[in-house]
Amino acid sequence: MKKVHNYSAGPCILPREVFEKAAQAVLDFEGSGLSILEISHRSKPFEAVMTKAQALVKELLGAPDHYQVVFLGGGASMGFHMIPQNYMKPGGKAAYANTGEWATRAIKESKMFGDTVVVASSEDKNFSYIPKGFDIPGDVDYFHFTSNNTIFGTQYKQFPKSPVPVICDMSSDIFSRPVNVADFALIYAGAQKNMGPAGATVYLMDPEKLGKTGRKLSPMMDLKNHADKESMYNTPPVYAVYVSMLTMEWMKRMGGVAAMEQRNAAKAKLLYDAIDRLPIFKGTTAVEDRSMMNATFVLNDASLEPAFDALWKEANISGIRGHRSVGGYRASMYNALPIESVQALVDVMEHFATTHG
Amino acid sequence: MKKVHNYSAGPCILPREVFEKAAQAVLDFEGSGLSILEISHRSKPFEAVMTKAQALVKELLGAPDHYQVVFLGGGASMGFHMIPQNYMKPGGKAAYANTGEWATRAIKESKMFGDTVVVASSEDKNFSYIPKGFDIPGDVDYFHFTSNNTIFGTQYKQFPKSPVPVICDMSSDIFSRPVNVADFALIYAGAQKNMGPAGATVYLMDPEKLGKTGRKLSPMMDLKNHADKESMYNTPPVYAVYVSMLTMEWMKRMGGVAAMEQRNAAKAKLLYDAIDRLPIFKGTTAVEDRSMMNATFVLNDASLEPAFDALWKEANISGIRGHRSVGGYRASMYNALPIESVQALVDVMEHFATTHG
Repeated sequence: MKKVHNYSAGPCILPREVFEKAAQAVLDFEGSGLSILEISHRSKPFEAVMTKAQALVKELLGAPDHYQVVFLGGGASMGFHMIPQNYMKPGGKAAYANTGEWATRAIKESKMFGDTVVVASSEDKNFSYIPKGFDIPGDVDYFHFTSNNTIFGTQYKQFPKSPVPVICDMSSDIFSRPVNVADFALIYAGAQKNMGPAGATVYLMDPEKLGKTGRKLSPMMDLKNHADKESMYNTPPVYAVYVSMLTMEWMKRMGGVAAMEQRNAAKAKLLYDAIDRLPIFKGTTAVEDRSMMNATFVLNDASLEPAFDALWKEANISGIRGHRSVGGYRASMYNALPIESVQALVDVMEHFATTHG
Repeated sequence: MKKVHNYSAGPCILPREVFEKAAQAVLDFEGSGLSILEISHRSKPFEAVMTKAQALVKELLGAPDHYQVVFLGGGASMGFHMIPQNYMKPGGKAAYANTGEWATRAIKESKMFGDTVVVASSEDKNFSYIPKGFDIPGDVDYFHFTSNNTIFGTQYKQFPKSPVPVICDMSSDIFSRPVNVADFALIYAGAQKNMGPAGATVYLMDPEKLGKTGRKLSPMMDLKNHADKESMYNTPPVYAVYVSMLTMEWMKRMGGVAAMEQRNAAKAKLLYDAIDRLPIFKGTTAVEDRSMMNATFVLNDASLEPAFDALWKEANISGIRGHRSVGGYRASMYNALPIESVQALVDVMEHFATTHG
């Protein structure tokens, strides 16, 4: 099998040993003679998977004991739709920070349910920085932000202080660094970056802040219902939860999120140093807000792109073309990406700068 | 690996060759050097999977050309929630037939959005039959029914005639028999019976009947939005769609849904004949409404259950305990279950009847 350096922005690289266990379970799950794809979600073996996955989320993030974990299908985009229903009172208000495409979509869904105040935005500079020093009003039901912007390559280094419950979409940097879970009413994330494959979304929440709006909710929209039913109100996305559990087990063996942060910092330093050292390239975000997950950069002379593209493709590098709304390049360096892959990219960049600089 | 006869009600058995291809793709998808779990949903190889899966749904069911196929996460339960929003006018009405647990849940969601008339129900006899000869009023926006009841083991043999657009939840018998798709505004189904693993839901719909209510919809709730975006408005459940595509390819190779119906009829006859022949057992549904997918039966003397349970477990039969709301036994015989597995169960039943009759 050829060795590919996978920089895909998500779904993205997961550890090789996870793929090996995940493939084996499709053939024969834990020696049962059955595939993980054909067992009941209410069977004891799968209930054990679900329980373990829920416990690992809390353990890895050091969540307070009373927090609850739910896995649902539908993606973080379904979260955008569910959150205002679960946290905004009828006639109430919500505050959002807008740092890019996904925050914009979350705001759009919130507006379906009530008054939605955008208290900070970096749209004026095409989302190339993280707004700072903004005020969150005390009369809103919650404040929502997106910890890392996958498309533009920005990341909050410090989280905003808030007088109201805080909800954070951590889809693209959950488990990449320690966070203080008690500061959040809800952390949620689509699985398909650091946690697992596409198809599951995790909700980690303070149950004391749930079910307080007085709003009549459909059972499918009600996070409290899903929590009370242990993520089994309806059939959960079995395989995506299983592979997420395997990936979290790997993180734990590797030393947890503190170790992930060290690895990620080393990888990011290696790449951003090359971007800054080689004048042929330029980073596209404010330096202090650079994401450790998604590094965005351009060639100062865009006409060189075809030559550069040929070179990295030859080196078996995959998935570094920028998002269509930004152009240029984006190197996504999620937890499972080895530093050797970053070195391979830096080698290509150095070589290209030498021959085209 | 031990050979298990898998009667699970869903997630359920899929063809062995599907598991083999699905496991290989987790290790190396089509020789790319990448796992199917780590490739972008917007990559050309996955776009080809999505396009093929959509085409196979239409081809297998013989759908009219202009019908559209969407794959979403969230399960058919999310469909219960989305359908009234997409098909019921504000201030409008919907008609539902209630044939069991899932129909009841669909009705509950519909009531969140407007007047919901239950035009037929078999609740009076614990959902042991299919209501017939009922009227569907002409002044409702749509009529909704559930083609097969997984829990109670009943199935519509003829579909109701309706003066209004018809919507059908075919989660537990899609692809088990030919249907005339043009009779339906929408057919939808959770993947985890005949189509694939848990985690995807398919919607096959007439686009001319969509987007007509004047209701303002959230983009995530809007089936037309998902259809316009080719199931890529947000990240789809990649692996569940891929395994569904493999399963549909298998069905096509096996002769399509007409061949599936023949296989299913032979399996059902083998089992129901044994239930009727052996006085120790009794079927729990009206004979004319017996499901070809889920056969429900009891021991006339419930005190014999532990002895019977020991016998079928010894024969490596799995998953035939009835749903907790019914008790007794339920043998789910989805497309991929070989007739040899049904014979194994019938052999156990015969032997038990001989020794305990």
